[in-house]
Amino acid sequence: MSVTADNWVEKIRAGDVRAISRAITAIENQEPAAEGILRQLFPDTGQAYLIGITGSPGTGKSTLVDRLATRYRKQQLPVGIVAVDPSSPFSGGAILGDRIRMQGHATDNGMFIRSMATRGFLGGLARTTADVALLLDAAGKRVILVETVGVGQDEVDIVKLADCTLVVLMPGSGDEVQAIKAGIMEIGDIFVLNKSDREGADRFEQELTAMLSLAPERDGWRPPVVRTVATEDKGTAELTAAIEKFRAHFSAAERRDAKSIERWKQRLLELLQARLMQRVAGEGLGEAALGALAAQIAGRKKDPYSAVSEILARVGLK
Amino acid sequence: MSVTADNWVEKIRAGDVRAISRAITAIENQEPAAEGILRQLFPDTGQAYLIGITGSPGTGKSTLVDRLATRYRKQQLPVGIVAVDPSSPFSGGAILGDRIRMQGHATDNGMFIRSMATRGFLGGLARTTADVALLLDAAGKRVILVETVGVGQDEVDIVKLADCTLVVLMPGSGDEVQAIKAGIMEIGDIFVLNKSDREGADRFEQELTAMLSLAPERDGWRPPVVRTVATEDKGTAELTAAIEKFRAHFSAAERRDAKSIERWKQRLLELLQARLMQRVAGEGLGEAALGALAAQIAGRKKDPYSAVSEILARVGLK
Repeated sequence: MSVTADNWVEKIRAGDVRAISRAITAIENQEPAAEGILRQLFPDTGQAYLIGITGSPGTGKSTLVDRLATRYRKQQLPVGIVAVDPSSPFSGGAILGDRIRMQGHATDNGMFIRSMATRGFLGGLARTTADVALLLDAAGKRVILVETVGVGQDEVDIVKLADCTLVVLMPGSGDEVQAIKAGIMEIGDIFVLNKSDREGADRFEQELTAMLSLAPERDGWRPPVVRTVATEDKGTAELTAAIEKFRAHFSAAERRDAKSIERWKQRLLELLQARLMQRVAGEGLGEAALGALAAQIAGRKKDPYSAVSEILARVGLK
Repeated sequence: MSVTADNWVEKIRAGDVRAISRAITAIENQEPAAEGILRQLFPDTGQAYLIGITGSPGTGKSTLVDRLATRYRKQQLPVGIVAVDPSSPFSGGAILGDRIRMQGHATDNGMFIRSMATRGFLGGLARTTADVALLLDAAGKRVILVETVGVGQDEVDIVKLADCTLVVLMPGSGDEVQAIKAGIMEIGDIFVLNKSDREGADRFEQELTAMLSLAPERDGWRPPVVRTVATEDKGTAELTAAIEKFRAHFSAAERRDAKSIERWKQRLLELLQARLMQRVAGEGLGEAALGALAAQIAGRKKDPYSAVSEILARVGLK
C-alpha cells in the first residue's frame, strides 16, 4: 500500500480495513511510521469500550467472542476484535484457526478482526495490544474485544488494559484447577461459565460462587457468574446485560477518571521503559550480547553493576 | 558508623553485623555508596545457597524458617535470613513481630536476620532483595533464607532469585483456595504442609499431591510434599533432606550454569531498567509529575508518545 502518513491517518479514521491492517503491522514491527500515526490519531480515542476475554484453551472463548460481536453489531456498534496468543511463536496459530468460523463477518465493514502472536525479546505484547486497541478506537470501533489464552503475566498485562474483563471457564475434569492455578480469579469482573449444558455445571457454579464470595468486593462490585452455551447462543444476552451493568456501575465519572489516570500512569512507565530498552537494543545490545554478558557475570568475570554502567555509557547515559 | 568504603568492604567480608546492617540500609535507600560496595564484593559471591520460602499469612513460615536456620547452624553453616513483606508499607510490621521469637539467635554471630518492607514508587523490592542476598553471600553466609508473604508479582519475582523455593501451606478452611489462587503452585520446588497435625491434613495432602501430579515435571523433578509441625520441630529434618535432594538433583554443572546465566540475563535487564528509570526520576519526574502527565493524557490534552519523547529529551536521550 503506497500511502503518505496523512492520507493513511485519514483512511484509518474512516475505518478503511486495509489502512487499519497496514497500521497494525507497522505497530507490530515497531516501524517508525507507527508512532507518528498513533500520535495523530490519539485525540480521536477514548470512545471505545474495551472488553478483555481470557480463559484456558478449549473453554470456547472464540465462539463466545463471535456471539458477543454479533450482538453488538446488531446494536449498530462498530466492533473490533483482537485475538492474542502469546503461547504461539507464529502469527496466527490456534486462534487464527478459530477465526475461520467468523468468516460470516468477513463482508461486514463494521467489524475488524486481527490475530496477534509475536512476542519480542523484550516482551511488549501487552504494549502492542494497547496500541492496536487505540488504533481501533480512533478508527471508530465502539466495542473492542481483546481475546487472550489466559495464564501468564502477558495475559494479565493484556487484560489490565480492559475496561471490563471476562474470565471464561467450563465445567469438567481439571478445569477447576486450571482456572484457579492461573491466578486469574482476581482479574475477572464477570465470570462466564461456558459449555454450561455439560455434566457438573451446577456443582462447578456452586464452587465458583463460593470461591468468589470469599474475595473482597471491589468498589461495591461482586463479580457475577453468567452461564452460557456459546455454540447455541444461549446466555449471551444475559452476558451482554451483565457487561452493561458493570459498565453502568463504574461509569461514575470520578471513579472512571481515577482509574483512567492510574492506567495511563502505568502505560507511560511502560512506554518509557520500552523506549529506553529499544535504545539499548539499538546500540547492538540484543539478546545474544546480553547472554554473553550474563555468562561473564555468572562466571564472576565481571560484576553486573559495571556491566550496566558500560551499557549506559554506550547509550550516552551515565 | 564512620567508615571508608574500603574498610567497610573488609568488615562485611569478615561478617561484621553492624557493617552488614549499614550496607543493607544503603542498598534500601539507594545510596551511591551501595553500588561501589556491591561491585567490590561481587567476586566473593556465588557460594551461598538461596532458599525462598513463601506462603499465605498464618501458615507458620517464620517458625519454619527459624527451625531450618537452627538446623543449618548446627551444621556450622553461617545463615542469613531476609524477611520480605511487600504488603506492609512500614519497615518491620508483622514479619518483624514474628522475628522476636528468633531472639534465641541474637547472640549467634553466624546468623544474620533482616526484615525489609519498603516498596519504592518504581517497585524494586525484588531487586533490593537480590542485592541484599549478594551482600550476605559475600559476607560468608552459606545458606540464605528469603521469606516472603506470598501472593503478588513481587513475591514471584523474589522467589525467582532462589535456588530452591518452598511453598508453605496448611490444612484448614479456605487455605486450599488461598494457596491455589495465589498462582504459586507453579513456583514451588518443594511443598511444605505445615501444621500437619491439624484436622484435614490427610485429605489436604491427597488433594495437593493429586494436583501436583497434573503438573509437568521440570527437568526430571516432581515437587514433593513434606509434612511438618514447625512449632514442635517435627518434619524439619525431612524438609532439610528434601532440600538437599533437590540441590543434588540440580547440581549438574551444565544445568546449573544455564540456569544461572538465564537468571543473570534477567537481572541485567532489570538493573538496566531500574537505572534508566532512576535517571528519569532524577530529572524531576517523580510520581507526582507522572500523575500530572497521566491526567493530561487521560483528558486527551496530550498524547502519550509525545509525553514519552519529552521525558526522554529531558534525560538527554531521543
